Amino acid sequence: MLNICISKFYSKTILAINVNAKQVKILLLEKLQTPMIIVNFKTYLEATGEKAVELAKKAEKVNLQTRVSIGVAPQFTDIVNVAKAISIPVFAQHMDPIQPGSHTGHVLAESVKEAGALGTLINHSERQLKLSDIDAIIKIAREKGLVSVVCANNPAISASVAALKPEIIAIEPPELIGTGIPVSKAKPEVITDTIRLVREINKKVVILCGAGISHGEDVEAALRLGTQGVLVASGIVKAKNPNRVLREFAEATRI
Amino acid sequence: MLNICISKFYSKTILAINVNAKQVKILLLEKLQTPMIIVNFKTYLEATGEKAVELAKKAEKVNLQTRVSIGVAPQFTDIVNVAKAISIPVFAQHMDPIQPGSHTGHVLAESVKEAGALGTLINHSERQLKLSDIDAIIKIAREKGLVSVVCANNPAISASVAALKPEIIAIEPPELIGTGIPVSKAKPEVITDTIRLVREINKKVVILCGAGISHGEDVEAALRLGTQGVLVASGIVKAKNPNRVLREFAEATRI
Amino acid sequence: MLNICISKFYSKTILAINVNAKQVKILLLEKLQTPMIIVNFKTYLEATGEKAVELAKKAEKVNLQTRVSIGVAPQFTDIVNVAKAISIPVFAQHMDPIQPGSHTGHVLAESVKEAGALGTLINHSERQLKLSDIDAIIKIAREKGLVSVVCANNPAISASVAALKPEIIAIEPPELIGTGIPVSKAKPEVITDTIRLVREINKKVVILCGAGISHGEDVEAALRLGTQGVLVASGIVKAKNPNRVLREFAEATRI
Amino acid sequence: MLNICISKFYSKTILAINVNAKQVKILLLEKLQTPMIIVNFKTYLEATGEKAVELAKKAEKVNLQTRVSIGVAPQFTDIVNVAKAISIPVFAQHMDPIQPGSHTGHVLAESVKEAGALGTLINHSERQLKLSDIDAIIKIAREKGLVSVVCANNPAISASVAALKPEIIAIEPPELIGTGIPVSKAKPEVITDTIRLVREINKKVVILCGAGISHGEDVEAALRLGTQGVLVASGIVKAKNPNRVLREFAEATRI
Repeated sequence: MLNICISKFYSKTILAINVNAKQVKILLLEKLQTPMIIVNFKTYLEATGEKAVELAKKAEKVNLQTRVSIGVAPQFTDIVNVAKAISIPVFAQHMDPIQPGSHTGHVLAESVKEAGALGTLINHSERQLKLSDIDAIIKIAREKGLVSVVCANNPAISASVAALKPEIIAIEPPELIGTGIPVSKAKPEVITDTIRLVREINKKVVILCGAGISHGEDVEAALRLGTQGVLVASGIVKAKNPNRVLREFAEATRI
Repeated sequence: MLNICISKFYSKTILAINVNAKQVKILLLEKLQTPMIIVNFKTYLEATGEKAVELAKKAEKVNLQTRVSIGVAPQFTDIVNVAKAISIPVFAQHMDPIQPGSHTGHVLAESVKEAGALGTLINHSERQLKLSDIDAIIKIAREKGLVSVVCANNPAISASVAALKPEIIAIEPPELIGTGIPVSKAKPEVITDTIRLVREINKKVVILCGAGISHGEDVEAALRLGTQGVLVASGIVKAKNPNRVLREFAEATRI
Repeated sequence: MLNICISKFYSKTILAINVNAKQVKILLLEKLQTPMIIVNFKTYLEATGEKAVELAKKAEKVNLQTRVSIGVAPQFTDIVNVAKAISIPVFAQHMDPIQPGSHTGHVLAESVKEAGALGTLINHSERQLKLSDIDAIIKIAREKGLVSVVCANNPAISASVAALKPEIIAIEPPELIGTGIPVSKAKPEVITDTIRLVREINKKVVILCGAGISHGEDVEAALRLGTQGVLVASGIVKAKNPNRVLREFAEATRI
Repeated sequence: MLNICISKFYSKTILAINVNAKQVKILLLEKLQTPMIIVNFKTYLEATGEKAVELAKKAEKVNLQTRVSIGVAPQFTDIVNVAKAISIPVFAQHMDPIQPGSHTGHVLAESVKEAGALGTLINHSERQLKLSDIDAIIKIAREKGLVSVVCANNPAISASVAALKPEIIAIEPPELIGTGIPVSKAKPEVITDTIRLVREINKKVVILCGAGISHGEDVEAALRLGTQGVLVASGIVKAKNPNRVLREFAEATRI
């Protein structure tokens, strides 16, 4: 699959990321372009099991129609079937800072990768991690050729994360998650502060924002503020017509 | 699939378990009989992805040959493919005490069940949980018709777990896990104390033991001490010939 | 100090507790009698630093006036000054399952004891612990001659805790904590179920209840249901006149 | 008390720290100067209760003799008595990201401050924290006029912490803690990498190092590499003659 990004102003292939693993670079180059939309399936029933596969297919369809880069983050158990069904990027929702061995009940990078994931969310506000674990997971992801999408609660934490050199940072004020009040409109200064502080430390990391993103105009506002895409969950998963909303989002990235 | 247990002294269908969910009873009756062997795949590379499926098939083969009840506990991402490939019971290695919703990176009972798991390990010594979470997970498992296998570190903790009424308790002294020194020979009093304390509280729960189980005679010793089976990991997963060792284990249950 | 318990029906010295440490027995015999009231200072500003000492003195005064057993649980930093100022029992709010050594930022049994505490709360719903840690802390407390007061969320968890043989269990439905809706009136079945399940496992453990206890009649209701006292926090700490309310509570124990 | 720093090359009053709270600035100016030595008492019995006070007095004596800035970090329960006994800076070993209220068993900034602490260690490798909690604790400390000493495991984590703008960072490779193998000699590149990465992000934060510091020459090596002092524990607490070793450390800062 080849995504061709049409947007004149915001499109950028994530080429220059200074990571060791060539594999990550290549995957990013081929599969992930900015602007991008990542759909977090969380543990919603509407996105569990067979429904996860159905929703992922809708995301792929919008990607094929619009050529806008879209990724999906299903539950661990669903990664295999989702990755088999679609060719757009699949992310795990979490990964543990472990090496293969005696770690019952933990999530191994190798298992996530073999299941078909291209990368993983890290430190989502619903699965917050110790600082040293975030660092360790980013390093493991890099070694295994997985893309790191690290979530951050506020501008200072985003800057802190930027120093650890993940490929992608997603700023999500937890108080807006799931509210339908879009961060890009309700708290634009959170986004602009994040971008300013992150860029002082890290010029290359892709910056997404999330929380309350429900309409195309929220996505457009997010990009105008300087982000390179959105991380979205209930706005798509809980939508009556996820296909329509996702298409609206994708088209809004072509501002 | 119907397992018929041949052992004269130890065979017992887990019929009488006092749970609400009839579903659990029926699954247990059909699929899980004592003595039983549960193989924990942990996050060993030897039991990840395709190799998880291969190992699970070996376990099924031994079950078909010996009619001894065998279950496998692969990683989350591997449950789907393992459950599709075999008909013996599949367990998750962990589950979170959550309801469907906003729980990024957590393990939902519904996802585990739809993936094909019959039950779940809970509170393994490598994934220890808060007491209130153990209680909550057992209750969720019961509601969803999943079998609870709760691990415990010592006799007192086993008794404490027994009060929460899971279907199965597995006593594993953590200091022996992965050592090849079998709990059933090195610390028989841990097992007998566990059985005594647990039975004062709960007559019906199935009691397994684990840690260091590597040979058929370790399994035999475990059953002679009064357990109804073993929870085993490296003894099988890391064996040069898992098939042979597992068969030895199965045959040792027919003492 | 000698407390003489006047209540005809409920008074009982906690004499027979089956613990190894004679020290615990003696302290309990001398200082803690049932019915008892334990006041948890939490991290309320009204009970921090000098104010912790003042509030503790009020509790002691009520104890002297009424001869009803009252204990206080101030913050770690306040234990020394509170214990120096009063002669009624002082409890830590938490303790870690550690031995002396390299455990920066943790709470050592020896430090709590040398500071003057008689015992410790364990597993409060605001500081929930892994099952294996609860077990380890109870054992450490017993070795060091400290009284264990283990909190539990519901009847099943209370029973589970009872199997670990602490001296005292406090059942507190978390949804009622701090509400002013008394567990003893709003959810009497939680208390009676707890007593029934706990007594099947442990005949000797003292059973307290808490959550929403604000008036003397709530205390009276708690004792009538079969508990041996109450664990209370905001009902006293946030009261306009803690002295008056505590006296009301103490008198209500003489039903 | 007034410390006058004699070292020509390394002395620096921490004047310019860009924090809001004037209180922190003033305390730092008056009490904390670089080079500095912070002695972490951990939960060693040799530094618990009365022994904590004795050891703190020894530290104060060395400070009076040498005029080198020395701080001590006793256990929570000992802060009151240590702070009463000495006039050199006292640090808590940890603090929780909480506001006053219902947080049983947690460590409130206000309680630590009223007990007499000037600041707190945060995220020690033996008490690691979620990234968002580190951020929250630094902010609370700043509001309350407490000095933040954030520990970090490696250069990348140190840089990440630097973005959160604490007053002091202490880099401690966990694998060397308590070994007697000094980080400043065994892993000098860890220190120089840390300084380089931190300074790209934060020009003002004071950088300490720790782990295995046992001799004056280790301290000297640490300062030559560019740190502004050391965080030490067993090297002092477990020494036969803590007074002598601490004096050796202090004199070694005057290189």
